[in-house]
Amino acid sequence: MPKNEIKIIEVKQNIFAENEKAADELRKHLKKEKTFMVNLMSSPGAGKTTILLRTIEMLKDEMKIGVMEADIDASIDAEKIAATGTKSIQIHTGGMCHMDAGMTREGLNELGIEDLDLVVLENVGNLVCPAEFDTGASCNVMILSVPEGDDKPLKYPLMFQVCDLVLINKIDAKSIFDFDDEAVVRRIHDRNPNTEILFISAKTGEGFNKWCDWLRNRVKEWQK
Amino acid sequence: MPKNEIKIIEVKQNIFAENEKAADELRKHLKKEKTFMVNLMSSPGAGKTTILLRTIEMLKDEMKIGVMEADIDASIDAEKIAATGTKSIQIHTGGMCHMDAGMTREGLNELGIEDLDLVVLENVGNLVCPAEFDTGASCNVMILSVPEGDDKPLKYPLMFQVCDLVLINKIDAKSIFDFDDEAVVRRIHDRNPNTEILFISAKTGEGFNKWCDWLRNRVKEWQK
Repeated sequence: MPKNEIKIIEVKQNIFAENEKAADELRKHLKKEKTFMVNLMSSPGAGKTTILLRTIEMLKDEMKIGVMEADIDASIDAEKIAATGTKSIQIHTGGMCHMDAGMTREGLNELGIEDLDLVVLENVGNLVCPAEFDTGASCNVMILSVPEGDDKPLKYPLMFQVCDLVLINKIDAKSIFDFDDEAVVRRIHDRNPNTEILFISAKTGEGFNKWCDWLRNRVKEWQK
Repeated sequence: MPKNEIKIIEVKQNIFAENEKAADELRKHLKKEKTFMVNLMSSPGAGKTTILLRTIEMLKDEMKIGVMEADIDASIDAEKIAATGTKSIQIHTGGMCHMDAGMTREGLNELGIEDLDLVVLENVGNLVCPAEFDTGASCNVMILSVPEGDDKPLKYPLMFQVCDLVLINKIDAKSIFDFDDEAVVRRIHDRNPNTEILFISAKTGEGFNKWCDWLRNRVKEWQK
């Protein structure tokens, strides 16, 4: 068993080094094209697509948005996004548990970013593997939903360390779940004191003005 | 990028073959020891530990139970289980997104199974990677919670294919989430027609008589 583990780690280190290089190149390309890219990560079912649909509705008249949906299988999310008239593609990862910079670049080539201000990559629903691979995005945003519990920063530390912003979603469901706001904020900041945190509900729209302001400011900063 | 992908797949195939051999050996060992082992998988926050706590409470007077908690970090779950007086250990995977048969065997050696009728391995919260690795368990059980949504069998097909039983948890929260029972059953059975499905609530206890009966029957069968 230790033999297997060592094998994985050796290969992984090579892949990580190559991936970081590809990610840095992709970020430079995005900066040159004035396209801001968000790598959106979460557990399965935390609300990535529902958040995206409301965000598109609020921002579509002021910026050009594109969406890349990464999934192991199915294309129901891409269909939902396309129904809003937003430029979108579905990426099937072929069983892979994450997106890396090479796969992201292929997706962006397919999508075409020349005319886009904002691209959102909806990563595979997974709190472990996507955190390990820099996709080349301008920023990392993760969603933690109230029903998942306030202990997740203790259990999935890397995900919280690599994120610029944590969206706490489904706050409308707080009445029926034990969820301690102060504890979750403290636990996230223990992992990464620079992470911003916003409380939202994709169902009711609560907190979306702040989240859209955050995006507007980041896009503006990127396009300077 | 394709170069990287090929590298991963080659290593993975060797690891899968070695892992399957180790898993089959472990299963024979468990059968000989008359210890039934459940590999319990789910997304982060679907309710693995809460389900375990109620299950232990209902079964502890009729069988000897042990628990192995696998997490990337932290030991809050193992502490909760230990507080019930149940034999338990915490396994830290060191960043690994899943348990394999070798890691599971090490855990069982540490736990000691001579006197145990039932061991539950609480796998890392992840719907992707744990599905790929046979742990050597007697059966695979996965939990899908209502807030995650009824579309998960479409997006994480392998997880549903490898499971003997799917527990649909948090049914007490149905009033505030859209969740279609018929659709989820159809989607699970499209992936694996032999999977059994039980609807439960770890909060209220609904459905736990059926789930505990399922476990009792499986343990009895294993110990014949």
